[in-house]
Amino acid sequence: MDAISRLLRPRSVAVIGASADAGKTSGRPVAYLLKHGYDGRILPVNPRVGQIGNLPCYADVSALPEVPDVGIVLLGAERAHLAVRELAERGAAAAIVLASGYTETGGEGARRQAQLLEAAGAMRILGPNTIGLVNLTDRIVLSATGALEMDHFPVGSVGVVSQSGGILGALLSRASARGIGLSKLISTSNEVDLELADFVDHLADDEATRVIALYVETIRNPEKFRAAALKAARAGKPVVAFKIGRSEAGAQAAVSHTGAMAGADRMYDAFFSQVGVIRAQTFSDLLDIPAALATGRRLAGNRVAILTSTGGAGTLVSDELGMAGFETPVPDDRTAAALRSLQTGDHAVLDRNPIDVTLAGLKPELLKGAINALQASPSYDALVVIVGSSSLAMPELMAGAIQECLPNSTKPVIAYVSPHAPAVGRILTRHGVPAFAAAESCRAALRGMLRVGQWRGDPGPEDEDREPVAVDALPVGALDEHQAKQLFARFGIPGVRESVVASPAQADQAASALGARVVLKMLSSQITHKSDVGGVAVNLAPEAVGERLEAMAAEVEARAGVRPDRYLVQEMVGGGVELILGMRRDALGSAILLGMGGVTAELFNDTSIRMLAPGKGLARQEADAMVRELKSWPLLDGYRGRPKADVDGLLDAIVAFSWMVAQLGDRLIEAEINPVFVLPQGQGVRAADGVAVLA
Amino acid sequence: MDAISRLLRPRSVAVIGASADAGKTSGRPVAYLLKHGYDGRILPVNPRVGQIGNLPCYADVSALPEVPDVGIVLLGAERAHLAVRELAERGAAAAIVLASGYTETGGEGARRQAQLLEAAGAMRILGPNTIGLVNLTDRIVLSATGALEMDHFPVGSVGVVSQSGGILGALLSRASARGIGLSKLISTSNEVDLELADFVDHLADDEATRVIALYVETIRNPEKFRAAALKAARAGKPVVAFKIGRSEAGAQAAVSHTGAMAGADRMYDAFFSQVGVIRAQTFSDLLDIPAALATGRRLAGNRVAILTSTGGAGTLVSDELGMAGFETPVPDDRTAAALRSLQTGDHAVLDRNPIDVTLAGLKPELLKGAINALQASPSYDALVVIVGSSSLAMPELMAGAIQECLPNSTKPVIAYVSPHAPAVGRILTRHGVPAFAAAESCRAALRGMLRVGQWRGDPGPEDEDREPVAVDALPVGALDEHQAKQLFARFGIPGVRESVVASPAQADQAASALGARVVLKMLSSQITHKSDVGGVAVNLAPEAVGERLEAMAAEVEARAGVRPDRYLVQEMVGGGVELILGMRRDALGSAILLGMGGVTAELFNDTSIRMLAPGKGLARQEADAMVRELKSWPLLDGYRGRPKADVDGLLDAIVAFSWMVAQLGDRLIEAEINPVFVLPQGQGVRAADGVAVLA
Repeated sequence: MDAISRLLRPRSVAVIGASADAGKTSGRPVAYLLKHGYDGRILPVNPRVGQIGNLPCYADVSALPEVPDVGIVLLGAERAHLAVRELAERGAAAAIVLASGYTETGGEGARRQAQLLEAAGAMRILGPNTIGLVNLTDRIVLSATGALEMDHFPVGSVGVVSQSGGILGALLSRASARGIGLSKLISTSNEVDLELADFVDHLADDEATRVIALYVETIRNPEKFRAAALKAARAGKPVVAFKIGRSEAGAQAAVSHTGAMAGADRMYDAFFSQVGVIRAQTFSDLLDIPAALATGRRLAGNRVAILTSTGGAGTLVSDELGMAGFETPVPDDRTAAALRSLQTGDHAVLDRNPIDVTLAGLKPELLKGAINALQASPSYDALVVIVGSSSLAMPELMAGAIQECLPNSTKPVIAYVSPHAPAVGRILTRHGVPAFAAAESCRAALRGMLRVGQWRGDPGPEDEDREPVAVDALPVGALDEHQAKQLFARFGIPGVRESVVASPAQADQAASALGARVVLKMLSSQITHKSDVGGVAVNLAPEAVGERLEAMAAEVEARAGVRPDRYLVQEMVGGGVELILGMRRDALGSAILLGMGGVTAELFNDTSIRMLAPGKGLARQEADAMVRELKSWPLLDGYRGRPKADVDGLLDAIVAFSWMVAQLGDRLIEAEINPVFVLPQGQGVRAADGVAVLA
Repeated sequence: MDAISRLLRPRSVAVIGASADAGKTSGRPVAYLLKHGYDGRILPVNPRVGQIGNLPCYADVSALPEVPDVGIVLLGAERAHLAVRELAERGAAAAIVLASGYTETGGEGARRQAQLLEAAGAMRILGPNTIGLVNLTDRIVLSATGALEMDHFPVGSVGVVSQSGGILGALLSRASARGIGLSKLISTSNEVDLELADFVDHLADDEATRVIALYVETIRNPEKFRAAALKAARAGKPVVAFKIGRSEAGAQAAVSHTGAMAGADRMYDAFFSQVGVIRAQTFSDLLDIPAALATGRRLAGNRVAILTSTGGAGTLVSDELGMAGFETPVPDDRTAAALRSLQTGDHAVLDRNPIDVTLAGLKPELLKGAINALQASPSYDALVVIVGSSSLAMPELMAGAIQECLPNSTKPVIAYVSPHAPAVGRILTRHGVPAFAAAESCRAALRGMLRVGQWRGDPGPEDEDREPVAVDALPVGALDEHQAKQLFARFGIPGVRESVVASPAQADQAASALGARVVLKMLSSQITHKSDVGGVAVNLAPEAVGERLEAMAAEVEARAGVRPDRYLVQEMVGGGVELILGMRRDALGSAILLGMGGVTAELFNDTSIRMLAPGKGLARQEADAMVRELKSWPLLDGYRGRPKADVDGLLDAIVAFSWMVAQLGDRLIEAEINPVFVLPQGQGVRAADGVAVLA
């Protein structure tokens, strides 16, 4: 057995610093293990205690009669590392360090945390500053915290890993109240060693776990996380993550615009999405979506039938689902006929959607008939049952009827409970019909099931063996515009035609070869906002360029204090769509960003983002998805009679840019093409300006 | 006493069709009245029953010994109108008609509903198809529905009016579970007579009601609602409304773009906002926001202190508030010193925000000290207290500490309860600290309190007595572009300089007077998308216009099948910002819409909307707010070195346009200026194209 398996299902547990007083925090771990009938050996360690209940207590770790799989270390931060060292020396698989006072408190704590890691050697550590874990499948509590202990655990198939202990307790108590069954609960906290990704990897193999729910503060090792998430996806175990830090101004001051537009949180969004992780938008979603996915049912389409026993609530749910892109079509003829055949009351009209059985009455046969008809209908991919006040008096009636019908179909069935009726919701959820008290939760649950049903895996780049581009003798530092575009061109992104000139005469000569209208720019690797100092002139007649250069030299000198010594004369590109293509790198990895260009780009922040796997460029399929995600996509696709843009050429450029970022790795500090013009079909793209900073 | 007062607090209630069997629906009203000790007279009416309990039962309404204030009609739709007529004849104030089978079932039902209204004469009707009402203040239940009845009502200051009966029951049970106190609960349903606005108006005067919560399906009488909402606002009683129908594709096919951009739901948004109604974004908000407002506390700013007894949850709430624009600054020096003086444990660090007392322990003196310090701090406008698992064992401790400190400040204090702990939330809410189980609810509650604290009332137009513009002899039907702009010009919106021409020679002559570059357009009141048929040519040299006219004539004839006989030659406007200014009218009233123009307008739908009060234009202040709401506002405000646009001129144009809409009323079927160019400061605006349809 590997160390994490031994940690989660130990044959023996040493409790270092155990107290005989179950009322004390240090008395709890032994008490919790005993209470739930732990069938392994419990080995309390405390030199000042002889016995805890019937269990002998040992003076120190070396005195233990056997090697424990796990040691729970109850000592304070000053002494915990001593126990960790002893446990490691005895060959324990893992230590759980509960003490606080480590990195979360600053410098001295960080030193202590490093000491802990050193003391552990090959042994694994959970924590420090953790509240421990609960293996609900096997009823093993390895914790000293009341919040992780209860008389009756809600056992089920959702594995929960949290970087916050307090949140883990909240999730346990909320899941229990809702009837949502859990398999494992693990608090990783400071993650000096074991981290989220380790447990995702483990739970992907855990038979008792069908869905993995994560509370994320930060992902310390993106590549390990990526591998674990993709493993879970391959194993058919969806991962749902709630990530805090959404409001942090993650963007740092940067030379390019890309920096400001690709905030850290959007990078997480892209990252999660690319590795198949469903992002919980609210904390409530972090239980709602797993509760739905734990049924194993997947949504094949977006058409939902709503069966209601109360007027307004059916409309409420229908409205919410409609806003999220779900459809609630009326029944097809055959389904409508089946529904009408169930009709008894005068006023009930069963062949609409929501299908309202309020007036037909809540009779089991009617309910079952309606549920079966809707499940069997080719018009619907899922069924939402609305529970009204009238069913409160007979909570089992609705649950019983649904439960009896469930095996007749594999379509998702969920419930919305309109009045405050937690007991009804709990019964339904336990019977395989995830129940929610908010229409937003129904929406999130259905979207989660749709996402899992539709995700096709990480495409990965097609050309894994792409030849590296020769990049010897690249300059270091901030490249000037011309150099930056030369770099991009090496990787296959064409730039506008241009010449570097140093005098009016050279400018006139260069311009005469470039066409009817040209652009003149100062050339500098220092001044990036050239137009702010008068260093850009567009739409010039070629014969006027030399004269304009003299004027520009004077203006830039006056405004920026330096007289440019070199200039660019460029062909002027017209008729294309202006985009921005850039990269951003932070602790999570390298992001490729595509955005609408021009003035409106920053006002509307119309951008799409993808994270790169290390050393890999983007798949063309991902580049295509990026382009179509833009709100301004219609501008590329022949909007209002415009010519269609060369999207193929744009995809080539995005893929090429991504391979450049992949190949150059840490050598590339910043890179952005702004704008890149996408010309009409067949004419490709042109990088018209660019920034690159090389290390 | 007016009829609604008598309906809500009747001195006597006749129950038409009452049964002696309290287990039957028709037995419930009398049973409910008796159970809660109703101190008026209960007058059962049923020819087949002699007595109900100790109450004599009367054969018919005419046999009643007194005029009842209210009659509850339990008869079916076929006979209800007979009872209504008898009640009206006796002089009852109001009848509550519970039967269904009216407009909600179609044509025959609509006939019955009209019959009901006719039978009522001057008497008021609640319903039909209503589940009745509950006056919690006075413990009077006028309903036959179990969902509106409970042993112990949560009495308080939130008045609830719902167009759905099922939803009213859900709100009652949810409020009760949360400890949110209600004053009145009224189900208006079909609203054959009494409607939402009547009860908003009444509750604005109701001493027991501090906040009004509405569940809205449709507003049947916008002007009555506007008046009632403004009355409530003046009375200091916030109105919170949840409106369904958000997903309806409210936009209809229309000649102008404005139609598609101003969806029906956005018109409701504007309407609510303008009359001071806070729109609940989720159904949960419909209790969360009133719960917060019922404290009477108002938020003066956006700076929030978070006091937590559990790690993760404080961050969760802080993150959510940060996304909504709230700030969570660290304490000022003096507050930090006060917090530090409370510090006991080693690791607790109290001078941050969230202020985490986890490690300092949950001691009443510590909590009170921290709460007092934060309430007194000039750094904060509100306090959020986070309740963790550790406080579950002593729910009164936290509540007691907060409650004791509440009177020391008028700042809002709310609570977030991290674990599932409904009892704790209930205690806190009842003690004046609204408690929520979701960070989103905290955000909604604080935003609601901020909104009420900042709302300055409906500005109303400044020039109430504006002289009407002479509009005699206006043409009828769709105006052509030139006529439309002449109409706009009459109301004070300048158009571009232009001439109507019929021949190349006229065109050349007209163009020579217009400047360096001109625009040529075909003129037609039939073809509105002129450019689609080749009927627009821009950026022409004046001397080329005649020739271009001939080419245009041929092209339009080829593509549209008609040869234009008239053309417009216009000055070409450059250097301005392109906007759209339009109107839309539906059952809710007339809306003025301002939007970003040009190609990106429709992709990003960057628009702002205001509803007009009948016969009134917009206040300049509202026009100003519309302009600043646009995401593209920076383009008008000197974005990136551009010249500032003539915003004063734009405001003039918006106000003028709104008065045109107000004055023309139903005569104006459609009107839109697209584009209107806003020129640099001091140069005004120019209507460059426009649509108007007159009845």
